[in-house]
Amino acid sequence: MAFVSFRRADGTTGYGRLHGDRIADCSAVPGAPATLKGAITAGALDMIEDGPVLAACDVLLLPVIPDPGKILCVGHNYESHRQETGRAKVDHPSIFLRFADTLIADRQPILRPRVSTNLDFEGELAVVIGRGGRAIAEDEAMAHVAGYACFNDASVRDWQWHTTQFAPGKNFPGTGAFGPKLVTPAEAGDLSDVHVVTRLNDVVVQDQPIRDMIFPIARIIAYVSTFTALSPGDVIATGTPGGVGAKRTPPLWMKSGDRVEVSIGPVGTLTNHVVDEADAA
Amino acid sequence: MAFVSFRRADGTTGYGRLHGDRIADCSAVPGAPATLKGAITAGALDMIEDGPVLAACDVLLLPVIPDPGKILCVGHNYESHRQETGRAKVDHPSIFLRFADTLIADRQPILRPRVSTNLDFEGELAVVIGRGGRAIAEDEAMAHVAGYACFNDASVRDWQWHTTQFAPGKNFPGTGAFGPKLVTPAEAGDLSDVHVVTRLNDVVVQDQPIRDMIFPIARIIAYVSTFTALSPGDVIATGTPGGVGAKRTPPLWMKSGDRVEVSIGPVGTLTNHVVDEADAA
Repeated sequence: MAFVSFRRADGTTGYGRLHGDRIADCSAVPGAPATLKGAITAGALDMIEDGPVLAACDVLLLPVIPDPGKILCVGHNYESHRQETGRAKVDHPSIFLRFADTLIADRQPILRPRVSTNLDFEGELAVVIGRGGRAIAEDEAMAHVAGYACFNDASVRDWQWHTTQFAPGKNFPGTGAFGPKLVTPAEAGDLSDVHVVTRLNDVVVQDQPIRDMIFPIARIIAYVSTFTALSPGDVIATGTPGGVGAKRTPPLWMKSGDRVEVSIGPVGTLTNHVVDEADAA
Repeated sequence: MAFVSFRRADGTTGYGRLHGDRIADCSAVPGAPATLKGAITAGALDMIEDGPVLAACDVLLLPVIPDPGKILCVGHNYESHRQETGRAKVDHPSIFLRFADTLIADRQPILRPRVSTNLDFEGELAVVIGRGGRAIAEDEAMAHVAGYACFNDASVRDWQWHTTQFAPGKNFPGTGAFGPKLVTPAEAGDLSDVHVVTRLNDVVVQDQPIRDMIFPIARIIAYVSTFTALSPGDVIATGTPGGVGAKRTPPLWMKSGDRVEVSIGPVGTLTNHVVDEADAA
């Protein structure tokens, strides 16, 4: 089962359940929560009632959760990426934060900022929290997952490396691609052998199975919820495999006109093109 | 001129202008914005109409801005603190993020988490954004400041240092003390020679003039607004002077029963005591 958030032609927003290339507009059912985050907060997604059917082409997709309360990102969570970045082995996941106003949807442009040409891709599996909580035990953590989505944690490397702290390079607008859909755990199945594959202009630039994560999803949820309460709709981007553009010789930066895809088997494919910020808006 | 956010005895919330130890409840004026952030968004604070007068003891103070959209913190922004931490000189401010649910008000307890004894103080000047914007020029940045407040960026050091990224140690609940009041730039006057003074159980542990900031406020606003849009009510904690407990021999950690004060001349004094999280709530 999979869900999308969208904007209708009349400018109003909603969410619905995917049936092939059609969307049952669950938010149009009288009394239904107005947002996908609200629906997750209200309870189990499999109880949501289908509403009137829309064609996918009738709506504009929004980020899977357009308004998460918290977005936590994991750094260096695949051994291949840890090695290429020269980072030390650590006993805990490396966590940095994104603001929600960095998010964009499937098919929306990733913005290359005016102040940098060092725009890099990072294909990742995003976890969306269902049931919230604090100090969630690792062996209960997977029951707190509402579903999965593809994420491109696009990074402005020179700004990321101005100091030790990554926040500046991870918070430019139009750099957090999140979509196209939320896939429930039952629909996704066991993701261990599924690969996170990133393609830049149809060339595979990252390809690694999810089983290669240094800190698995349950461990990340347990760790994060020790220092901060998680709420329904919160997002954890679980880290990127090796192959990022910054660590290639010469570096491979994304530029205007590029097309970048993140594919994660049953979780789907997130597609974005790159536009110079000066030319957008 | 100074403003506070508060909760009334009946549980409702509001904000008002300080007149000595009395508060004119501006939010009770018909048609007034409901929150201090709303009032800042609506325009100049000096235009806000006074409402019915309350005694300070009739309300419970809230964090100056209880619900900021963004909280950005600057690391190592005084030479004395940079040296004690052994950090390299950098050309840009070091920026990390806090969630709004870490904030507490003047007189509310700072929570020492269950999982750590390494709870440290960081007295700081907080800047509250008035007019928002992106790519704000340094020479225009001070016109975007709504006012100042004291901040205690209390830090769980072992969690801050689990990896290179500070977020975990800076986002435990009950660690971002922010108060007591918002002081307008006109009221604060020139802060260059004003000292940020932190006292732990009446002993001065940090004392440094604001002029010693490595990156002054205007520079920080210009830098931050290059990568993220600032909005009214957003908060920038401008960094702490030397003297933190972690860098003392032996380390000086805050513990249950301690009283910590951050005083910044005309900006006022923020007072909190420390409680074990297990004993709170």
